Amino acid sequence: MPVLVQKYGGSSVANTERLRRVAARVVAARREGFDVVVVVSAQGDTTDDLIQKARELAPNPPRREMDMLLATGEQASIALLAIAIDALGEPVVSLTGAQGGIYTDNLYSKAKITRVSCDRIRRELAAGKIVIVAGFQGITVEQGSSDYDITTLGRGGSDTTAVALAAALQAQTCEIYTDVTGVFTADPRLVPAARKIPVISYGEMLEMASLGAVVLQPRAVELAAVWSVPIHVRSSFSDEPGTMVRELNAMGNQPVTTGCAGVVGSPEGVLSAGAEREMVVTGVTHDANVAKVVVVDVPDRPGVAARIFGALAKQRINVDMIVQTTKEKQETDLLFTVCRDDLARAGEVVRQVAHELGAREVLEDESVAKVSIVGAGMMMNPGVAAMMFETLAEQGINIQVISTSEIKVSCLVEASQVAQAVRSLHRRFLEEAGESPARTGGSVTVATQGT
Amino acid sequence: MPVLVQKYGGSSVANTERLRRVAARVVAARREGFDVVVVVSAQGDTTDDLIQKARELAPNPPRREMDMLLATGEQASIALLAIAIDALGEPVVSLTGAQGGIYTDNLYSKAKITRVSCDRIRRELAAGKIVIVAGFQGITVEQGSSDYDITTLGRGGSDTTAVALAAALQAQTCEIYTDVTGVFTADPRLVPAARKIPVISYGEMLEMASLGAVVLQPRAVELAAVWSVPIHVRSSFSDEPGTMVRELNAMGNQPVTTGCAGVVGSPEGVLSAGAEREMVVTGVTHDANVAKVVVVDVPDRPGVAARIFGALAKQRINVDMIVQTTKEKQETDLLFTVCRDDLARAGEVVRQVAHELGAREVLEDESVAKVSIVGAGMMMNPGVAAMMFETLAEQGINIQVISTSEIKVSCLVEASQVAQAVRSLHRRFLEEAGESPARTGGSVTVATQGT
Repeated sequence: MPVLVQKYGGSSVANTERLRRVAARVVAARREGFDVVVVVSAQGDTTDDLIQKARELAPNPPRREMDMLLATGEQASIALLAIAIDALGEPVVSLTGAQGGIYTDNLYSKAKITRVSCDRIRRELAAGKIVIVAGFQGITVEQGSSDYDITTLGRGGSDTTAVALAAALQAQTCEIYTDVTGVFTADPRLVPAARKIPVISYGEMLEMASLGAVVLQPRAVELAAVWSVPIHVRSSFSDEPGTMVRELNAMGNQPVTTGCAGVVGSPEGVLSAGAEREMVVTGVTHDANVAKVVVVDVPDRPGVAARIFGALAKQRINVDMIVQTTKEKQETDLLFTVCRDDLARAGEVVRQVAHELGAREVLEDESVAKVSIVGAGMMMNPGVAAMMFETLAEQGINIQVISTSEIKVSCLVEASQVAQAVRSLHRRFLEEAGESPARTGGSVTVATQGT
Repeated sequence: MPVLVQKYGGSSVANTERLRRVAARVVAARREGFDVVVVVSAQGDTTDDLIQKARELAPNPPRREMDMLLATGEQASIALLAIAIDALGEPVVSLTGAQGGIYTDNLYSKAKITRVSCDRIRRELAAGKIVIVAGFQGITVEQGSSDYDITTLGRGGSDTTAVALAAALQAQTCEIYTDVTGVFTADPRLVPAARKIPVISYGEMLEMASLGAVVLQPRAVELAAVWSVPIHVRSSFSDEPGTMVRELNAMGNQPVTTGCAGVVGSPEGVLSAGAEREMVVTGVTHDANVAKVVVVDVPDRPGVAARIFGALAKQRINVDMIVQTTKEKQETDLLFTVCRDDLARAGEVVRQVAHELGAREVLEDESVAKVSIVGAGMMMNPGVAAMMFETLAEQGINIQVISTSEIKVSCLVEASQVAQAVRSLHRRFLEEAGESPARTGGSVTVATQGT
């Protein structure tokens, strides 16, 4: 039987009623003839509540113990879902990450999956059971020891678990159920004209997810791309098809070979529209969770940037956009952005180094946001970036920093202007006359994502 | 270093403040020079809340999944306690039942420990760490398979985990922390004159625990007796010595050899009073969680009792007291008691059999309670039972059923009279003039016990 992996986020299993609805959906897939493997996150706010409990005891609890604690959230979910499925009369078994064969390194709280061993899952499937696996968690096997310790995979870990299992089991599709109906051309809360994207490539999805979309975690998309796992992002509250994330060539066509099992598991009709890709922009994303740091009047000599960014890397602080402004004399301003949560630590680290380097001061600014356009078609359309800058200029929006890749252009703007920026860019690239409806692009709605 | 096992119940770790207090106590023991292994239950009402969640999904959830669910309660506790201990600067590691080497059979929800493998615990202790182990849970290893499934040990499982670890690690003492200060000569809520018992034998403790006391689970006492693990029952809210449960001969003296490690771990001074046992009664217990079933006018022929009790055993319903009243003609009344929770099921089973046997009717009665006197000294004092009946008669309390063992006498009485019965028996056997204070006996306070 073909294997179907389904992943349900925390909001989809938040209470008895929702658990029952998920159970019914799982059982329906089973009765359609699939071997079903279900990955679940912790219920609703469970993870946050557990973090709160730990923080009351210690501001910075040991990571191993945090993983031991947080793993209970998913373990409770799998048991409850198994109970709900059993009540519908289908054979079912729940498995922890360890039992599901999710092996990781021992970087507690952000462990990486090193190996997936599906023996137990295959045996349970062969015995006719629906298999429920705890997302977000794994187990270490230290070299030469018998220490099996519980780890968690960090933010978006359940998506990663689902994709990893789909790859290992050569699943037909990995369905990611969330509380929105798919990936959109822009956040519908900002842009009423935003449309659901029926199909999107891994590359575009990855850029969009990295640029502020939280429907799918970038890590999971990356893993899916490596193993060619087709992902179907859809809502657990409706039956409508969502967004397929899969291999597409630059023209937006399906490639000849798709699916890790060589089977194309697309929702009916989704791929029927448009044989050619006419849109250069797939979607508009925005990310308000950014902050700006400016090191003012830093001596302009070799090695300065290395010192500053080396110190940040050592503290595991990710730096996003970087720009260096050459001024008169021998000094320069160094500007970069970080995730807003990291701002305080980044400021501290940089102030220390800046002092040693003789820079004048370090400024922190949270009133910024990033707006981006994403589209594989941009590779062949060099004028797109200019059109973006022009559109923002028309709106009187000042661009503070620009960063580009082959398939996206991002601009840092004043936070208060981000909604206006998203709307104008969506109108310019995705709504204006002459656009073909063939295959539309998309941005991602900002939704709360379970672990 | 000598090993000390400490077990904390759910109420002792119910919130941040209590976790901190337990952490401080654990660290103090460590700094006194012990290798400390701590067993904890789930926080407060966690287990009940989880059961409630499951019951909302299904009236009778699969036991394997219930164990998967309930095990999260203890797993969260061990992580939180480890975090609290780490915050005090002591090296610490938390271990699930599986990691702690607690292997069980696969009788989910009431699994029996089949093997304790302390390699990991010993390694962590050798590395200088305090080790926290999840109580109440274990893991199966099915013959010839690699299926490690999570089990729970049932009611009082954490006490059992603690005693099993103490035996395996040859601990000096197994300290059971609860919310009362020890084992009492009677429930202090009923008998203001009740006193704490400094030392009690395994046999007496076992009878008392089985007869309604819930400070210690009978299973754990039994295991402690088999492996000669000295238990110290004490309060997590105070430093005063509690009750030592250990090997004693019938005279109340310490035996020559005690302690699984050959070390006597008694709280100071506890064993200094009285070299001879003068009290025949150690304590008075009562149990309101009983119900009576009467099969009226059952034919008095061989095999009848076997049919009835066989049917009950098949349903795993424990029967406690049994009495058969011979009446005129060929008929008899068969009366027995069960745990109140089992009454409905017992009634159903018996009605079925009674109908087949041609009995007239089956009566159920919840308005009963059991009162017992316990004492190893009764073996050599045959007049004790008569004195008990006389005392109850003086109070106008009717005895419905009597059951005895070498070291206890139990009477079933009207529920409304049980407090009066306990008070009069405590006065008669434990307070009256001429009694030596040397070594007093005891009953157990009724306190809510964690898992």
